[in-house]
Amino acid sequence: MGEEHQLHYNEPWIMQRADPYVYRHIDGTYYFTASVPAYDSIVLRSSDTLEGLQTAEEKEIWHKHECGIMSKHVWAPELHYLDGKWYIYFAASDVNDVWSLRPYVLECADADPVAGKWTELGKMQKAVDDEFSFENFSLDGTVFESRGRRYYVWAEKVGVGSQISNLYISELETPNKLKTVQVLLTTPDYDWERRVLWVNEAPGVIRHNDRLFLTYSASNTGVHYCIGMLSVNEDADLLDPRSWEKERYPVLSSDADRGIYGPGHNSFTKDEDGNDIMVYHARTESVITGEPLYNPNRHTMLMKIRWSKDGRPVFGYDV
Amino acid sequence: MGEEHQLHYNEPWIMQRADPYVYRHIDGTYYFTASVPAYDSIVLRSSDTLEGLQTAEEKEIWHKHECGIMSKHVWAPELHYLDGKWYIYFAASDVNDVWSLRPYVLECADADPVAGKWTELGKMQKAVDDEFSFENFSLDGTVFESRGRRYYVWAEKVGVGSQISNLYISELETPNKLKTVQVLLTTPDYDWERRVLWVNEAPGVIRHNDRLFLTYSASNTGVHYCIGMLSVNEDADLLDPRSWEKERYPVLSSDADRGIYGPGHNSFTKDEDGNDIMVYHARTESVITGEPLYNPNRHTMLMKIRWSKDGRPVFGYDV
Repeated sequence: MGEEHQLHYNEPWIMQRADPYVYRHIDGTYYFTASVPAYDSIVLRSSDTLEGLQTAEEKEIWHKHECGIMSKHVWAPELHYLDGKWYIYFAASDVNDVWSLRPYVLECADADPVAGKWTELGKMQKAVDDEFSFENFSLDGTVFESRGRRYYVWAEKVGVGSQISNLYISELETPNKLKTVQVLLTTPDYDWERRVLWVNEAPGVIRHNDRLFLTYSASNTGVHYCIGMLSVNEDADLLDPRSWEKERYPVLSSDADRGIYGPGHNSFTKDEDGNDIMVYHARTESVITGEPLYNPNRHTMLMKIRWSKDGRPVFGYDV
Repeated sequence: MGEEHQLHYNEPWIMQRADPYVYRHIDGTYYFTASVPAYDSIVLRSSDTLEGLQTAEEKEIWHKHECGIMSKHVWAPELHYLDGKWYIYFAASDVNDVWSLRPYVLECADADPVAGKWTELGKMQKAVDDEFSFENFSLDGTVFESRGRRYYVWAEKVGVGSQISNLYISELETPNKLKTVQVLLTTPDYDWERRVLWVNEAPGVIRHNDRLFLTYSASNTGVHYCIGMLSVNEDADLLDPRSWEKERYPVLSSDADRGIYGPGHNSFTKDEDGNDIMVYHARTESVITGEPLYNPNRHTMLMKIRWSKDGRPVFGYDV
């Protein structure tokens, strides 16, 4: 790569884009989507290079409805290519019930998802015998494949009054329907997952050798926001929570010396050289004006992931 | 022991007493309490011998209120002796809101809890910074000590519409107040915990060498009711859910050949020879007339526990 492809890590890369998601297609094209500050639409960018996403034109491929479902709080879109079609997973609520977040799916059968035609598939569907999933505040769905099976992981709240956001996993039957009932993957167990709000959300999966690492974000989306991690051997039953190991401490959190606050909601991709790259958002301000959720200054950043000798990802601002 | 102390295992021992709890006091006296079919009162029996509990006179030491809290569904009392006083932990609801189960505590400062005066301490209290505990359907509180600390484990439901009953642990500050916020110990992860209802409840703790074994009951209280188990090394942090290991399969379930159905809601004691005894309830009928919860034929049974060479409890009807 020439100098024009120089990536700068752990500093704002794409401004005011939160919950960033980068996907590199089989033809090498990079795609980028994220939550926009107005929370009113889903945008896509594409580029031949990872670095090119920074300045690529951004196209709105879907806009929120005027009322009813999908009319408010359009959050955390992800782009997936499954069985020859494009899918966008996102969450949204209703202007008349602004915290009624539920997961929805868009589909595009065209080759180019930026220029193509997108169709609404409606709400993500649970399995026939599942009484629990997507009945309450639920969002941040992601999809990954392992050993020929496809899995869906999402965040959903439980409780009365104050609520707790957990992560669940299920096998997928089709791109927009679960095959199995929910399995609890992680709940906020530790103090760093319980700052202001008890939250586990924003799952992202990366594979290394035969192990899957599932990062997630914890606590409320201010300076306490941080990244925790689960991992599992791919030979194990991924629907058995005993197969998953949870880290006792966050793998990435705020660093005041570097002016990086509330890192989280990451996804994973590879650069053109095949290096593993984490795409995440963080703030550069320690003091947030107003409600953190409506402060636009969560910026997309990149981090180069190093692998330890025992095959574990190392997340560090100095890598 | 003479023939008069012969205990018969795994057959009805005390008829129509569910959620049985036996405590052997420091003076050797045995006490027995349980849910009565009318769910309207708390009863106590005492005897110099374990076998004697079977025919000991039963005294009602507390009766439900006419209305308001503690006026309906008086369930699963446990007797504990803490800091020189007696405590009864139980759950109850309100005649005008029959599923509003919450945990309550009674106290008795007299030497003899059967003849003594009992005082209501009201609802079990959560820690100051706990937003979540005892806010929803919650019951089956038990107390145990380890390494000089006292812990409380209970069942509480989460969810909207259909709900899921989980087990939680907290340290105790006083006999009727938690010191720490809740920690999730187990949720129904497997099919045998999800029959008809998704339930983990009825925790009971037994110590062997330096390991604690926490049994609990799973699924609805019919023929599917069964016993699962967690265990933890006492040197570990008991408030860290990573310290606990969960068994993949139930440790005890129905046995049609023996005519034992829906074993569960057990407690632990020792016989006069120091053998570990499990006290549990089960049915002898595979077909239950009406709603299982209101069918009175859950009978208290005893089981002698064997310990495997690696220090694990073996639960078997043939032991």
